[in-house]
Amino acid sequence: MKRLYGGIEAGGTKFVCMVATGPDDVVEEKRFPTASPEETIQQTNSFFAPYARRGELAALGIASFGPVDLNPASPTYGYITTTPKTDWNNVDLQGGVSRALELPVVLDTDVNAAALGEHYWTAENNLLDPFVYITVGTGIGVGVLANGRPVHGLVHIEAGHFAIPHDRQKDPFPGSCPYHGDCLEGLGSGTAIHRRWGKNAEALPDSHPAWELESEYIALALINLIYAYSPQRIVLGGGVSQHAGLHEIVRRKVQQGLNGYIQSPMLLKAIDEYIVPPSLGNRSGVLGAIAMAIDLVKS
Amino acid sequence: MKRLYGGIEAGGTKFVCMVATGPDDVVEEKRFPTASPEETIQQTNSFFAPYARRGELAALGIASFGPVDLNPASPTYGYITTTPKTDWNNVDLQGGVSRALELPVVLDTDVNAAALGEHYWTAENNLLDPFVYITVGTGIGVGVLANGRPVHGLVHIEAGHFAIPHDRQKDPFPGSCPYHGDCLEGLGSGTAIHRRWGKNAEALPDSHPAWELESEYIALALINLIYAYSPQRIVLGGGVSQHAGLHEIVRRKVQQGLNGYIQSPMLLKAIDEYIVPPSLGNRSGVLGAIAMAIDLVKS
Repeated sequence: MKRLYGGIEAGGTKFVCMVATGPDDVVEEKRFPTASPEETIQQTNSFFAPYARRGELAALGIASFGPVDLNPASPTYGYITTTPKTDWNNVDLQGGVSRALELPVVLDTDVNAAALGEHYWTAENNLLDPFVYITVGTGIGVGVLANGRPVHGLVHIEAGHFAIPHDRQKDPFPGSCPYHGDCLEGLGSGTAIHRRWGKNAEALPDSHPAWELESEYIALALINLIYAYSPQRIVLGGGVSQHAGLHEIVRRKVQQGLNGYIQSPMLLKAIDEYIVPPSLGNRSGVLGAIAMAIDLVKS
Repeated sequence: MKRLYGGIEAGGTKFVCMVATGPDDVVEEKRFPTASPEETIQQTNSFFAPYARRGELAALGIASFGPVDLNPASPTYGYITTTPKTDWNNVDLQGGVSRALELPVVLDTDVNAAALGEHYWTAENNLLDPFVYITVGTGIGVGVLANGRPVHGLVHIEAGHFAIPHDRQKDPFPGSCPYHGDCLEGLGSGTAIHRRWGKNAEALPDSHPAWELESEYIALALINLIYAYSPQRIVLGGGVSQHAGLHEIVRRKVQQGLNGYIQSPMLLKAIDEYIVPPSLGNRSGVLGAIAMAIDLVKS
């Protein structure tokens, strides 16, 4: 009976709920806007309740916006902690779902889940390690698998806030990060683009100088991720990165920045297969949550 | 009989060879300058030969300068590949030792080995994951354990070459890295210090402005490592970092740079226990090589 898995992508603007056994066997999927914690968690639980009642669900995974407490030994494991969305501060997301549905629930960051989803469900990624997922959208987030598992640590990876070079003559914009000003996210996120140019990224034409600058910041992000992890593949996702032709420019700038220092055929010759868009489109996170639920049952 | 392990720290300027079962049971240790590959490998093998002949050695570990080929499936596994020390290009270090001594030999980077040594032999480090070792000396190198094991990937970690902010008004030095100019190593290594100030780091007094600048670059390195890995501890070693008081200044600058973004008591209150000098002094690498040999026999 218990052959299905639940996946939740808990985002700051929308929630995605899914019942599935994998990308090719999605039983039901629902998207709704993120409201108050009580309302949103209740809506989530209502979606899964019929499946839980019928004993069809083995476990659930949550791919959550953050920061979240990922330490299983902590009394606030599975809580969203100190997010700028202040009504979600100190919300027990994992417990709110697991208690209502009486099911085992595992939680990770949205980006770690997306990394896992792309790794788990894509045959050509499955053996690649370390494996990096970076999303460039409103913010910049990074998830990483190393030695077979998502990387957790003191808190979680925050590579969106890398300190990177900022040429103020070329780009006088001071940066949009409330903590660091001109960190990577402060210079290269969708928020930074909107503040710098007064328009959303989608409204900027291909010929706009924004894209040259944006591709430089994304390339710096990838270069630092390559130095940090020596990943075997990088999935570059998120709304901003989907701009036509951006991947191609980023790849060239990564090669220029590395300047031949890392002697790997993947970087020198096959970079088109090395820096790739998500195979699962906008479902990497929720399908990663499904994979987390499967792994939880296995372990 | 086979109760001893061999450790080799293969450095660009010196080799350290050790027979031991751990830091408190070192049977013999020898240091000699690095010469030609043939001569140096022969000297290494001569050191271990009596132990091997008596059947006392179970395995050897090598902590090597690089770049090295760490891919066990590669025909050049265990080779030093394209080092600036050109006579060591394409040298089969692992094979040169294992064939002569007829023993199993495992090889990793000097910095991964140092990370392992500090992790394996230091009780308070042993459960911390991810675990980062950074050395700031002539060059800058980083080794990382994540999910219990050293991180290997496309090649190996090269976080010494992070792209970091460079304020050319404050520091007009263009950087010393032959590949990237003002990357982290180009700005913060012992080589950069020598070129910028015309003196070796050891010759610069505490009051010299070099130290303020150096602590900023090291802090930027640690900040990016914290964002990349969320490590549970960072060991900061290497000759330059041993300058009196430097660790303390670096810790403060790391806190300033993070600016409260990462809400962890380790960073906010206990940073003195978070960024620490090596427990094993200058033996982290060779004792890490001993730990690698022990792990090889176990596996």
